[in-house]
Amino acid sequence: MCSVISRVRPVQRALALTLRLRTSTEGSSYAAAERRRFCPGVSNDIHPLRAPSRSYCSRVALTQGLLFKQLFESESSTYTYLLADTETKEAILIDPVLETIDRDLKLIHELGLNLKVAVNTHCHADHITSTGLMKKRLVGLKSAISKLSGASADIHLSEGDKINFGKHYLTVRETPGHTDGCVTLVLGDQSMAFTGDTLLIRGCGRTDFQQGCAKRLYESIHQKIFTLPDHCLVYPAHDYRGQTASTVGEERKFNPRLTKSVEEFVDIMNNLNLPKPKKIDISVPANLVCGVHEV
Amino acid sequence: MCSVISRVRPVQRALALTLRLRTSTEGSSYAAAERRRFCPGVSNDIHPLRAPSRSYCSRVALTQGLLFKQLFESESSTYTYLLADTETKEAILIDPVLETIDRDLKLIHELGLNLKVAVNTHCHADHITSTGLMKKRLVGLKSAISKLSGASADIHLSEGDKINFGKHYLTVRETPGHTDGCVTLVLGDQSMAFTGDTLLIRGCGRTDFQQGCAKRLYESIHQKIFTLPDHCLVYPAHDYRGQTASTVGEERKFNPRLTKSVEEFVDIMNNLNLPKPKKIDISVPANLVCGVHEV
Repeated sequence: MCSVISRVRPVQRALALTLRLRTSTEGSSYAAAERRRFCPGVSNDIHPLRAPSRSYCSRVALTQGLLFKQLFESESSTYTYLLADTETKEAILIDPVLETIDRDLKLIHELGLNLKVAVNTHCHADHITSTGLMKKRLVGLKSAISKLSGASADIHLSEGDKINFGKHYLTVRETPGHTDGCVTLVLGDQSMAFTGDTLLIRGCGRTDFQQGCAKRLYESIHQKIFTLPDHCLVYPAHDYRGQTASTVGEERKFNPRLTKSVEEFVDIMNNLNLPKPKKIDISVPANLVCGVHEV
Repeated sequence: MCSVISRVRPVQRALALTLRLRTSTEGSSYAAAERRRFCPGVSNDIHPLRAPSRSYCSRVALTQGLLFKQLFESESSTYTYLLADTETKEAILIDPVLETIDRDLKLIHELGLNLKVAVNTHCHADHITSTGLMKKRLVGLKSAISKLSGASADIHLSEGDKINFGKHYLTVRETPGHTDGCVTLVLGDQSMAFTGDTLLIRGCGRTDFQQGCAKRLYESIHQKIFTLPDHCLVYPAHDYRGQTASTVGEERKFNPRLTKSVEEFVDIMNNLNLPKPKKIDISVPANLVCGVHEV
């Protein structure tokens, strides 16, 4: 296993499950269990149930020593995210796109970063990932994706895994529904969540191909994302309306689909009648092998 | 004068000028003078000359109680910014675009904000502002633009003016060069600067129309923006490469034009040979009257 990944061992998984079940019956949340597990010293101030009602419109997270860049690829409307520890320069890249590999590598070089892991939130259908090609151009870079994606990569991620970069880390939350292998990556202090195609700003990923299941998507969002603190920033893999970020509190309150009952949600999702993604026939086979066939 | 604007009186202007001149001869900066004037208790940690070299890649500012939204209009690649005080809900909007007025008003409504001022960083040539139409749809909203723009508005801004929203404010810095009436708006704690078309990410506004002057642009950026702290986030009015934000430190170090001498810069700018903006003939006349002719 790559040294930048911390894996939850089976006994820890069982404990986590116990915590999850117990806190569920106590009316608390999966998020609270996660926080106790990884951040035992975190103040109760950010407990989602005690957060003030105005927190849905609070601004940026207060993570010290974190470099953060949001980047956009306009053809597929994909957001790529670069995060790094400003001290150690260890960096990770989320959902990089083949067309913008030169821009991303130039930025990484300019900022003097040591890119450790390039991770995809899932096997994308609308664009080809640059992780495979980037591995050829950056010595030591590892690719990562959910083990449930069926895609090849250096690191296969599972629920509770931590992707470390310097003193920071992202925790993996499996959030299937758009695809079986979708994950949401949550910053250690729960100030940011990279939701991939699971939760979009005032929307969500479609569920009509690649193992899509509306009911699973609804459950993933409600159980794994909406249980994060209201102020947690939501950074999706796409936006088509010029929006760059949201918060968990905003989406809980204003998402036009996710505020519906599960039955209404499933009905909406099953009747979207969207056209097939233009690039799906080349993107999915390529992304199953890190974007390049010879990796 | 609108109550949300605090104007620097002549005696204060003189003092500011004195401070600027004195600090210049002392090898300090305009930014330091500004900070002493408005933020006398701010730690020396953010002094631009003492900032650690890594600060160019530090992340978000740590302004408490500030709501911040970056929004994008894809046809003209324009960024619109919404800022608000999370307690009082008073808000300001920077560079709103006519095509996205419904999106922006919906967001303002959802978040329960009281939009006080819609400000343009200059008289745009590439898109029509929504400030005029927005005033018709939001009672009490004031429009603002530099008095040097020649455009009509409820509030004409000058160097040192403060645009207040709740406990926060933006300070106006006149940064001519792209146009005579260009301003950069700097958040009170100098953690964010909205640079309009003056400074773009790894670029700058063109200087070949609308009173454009390369030498003035160079001086504006070096004297009024590059004197801000390295960690100050740079939010431009446009980006054409999927970049969403930079920092003063990054641009000082990596901007391919502004790192040149003034002579080289002027030569570059005078030989860009860019096509005329598609919408200039309708945008400029419209923006001279807040985007609508009957305001």
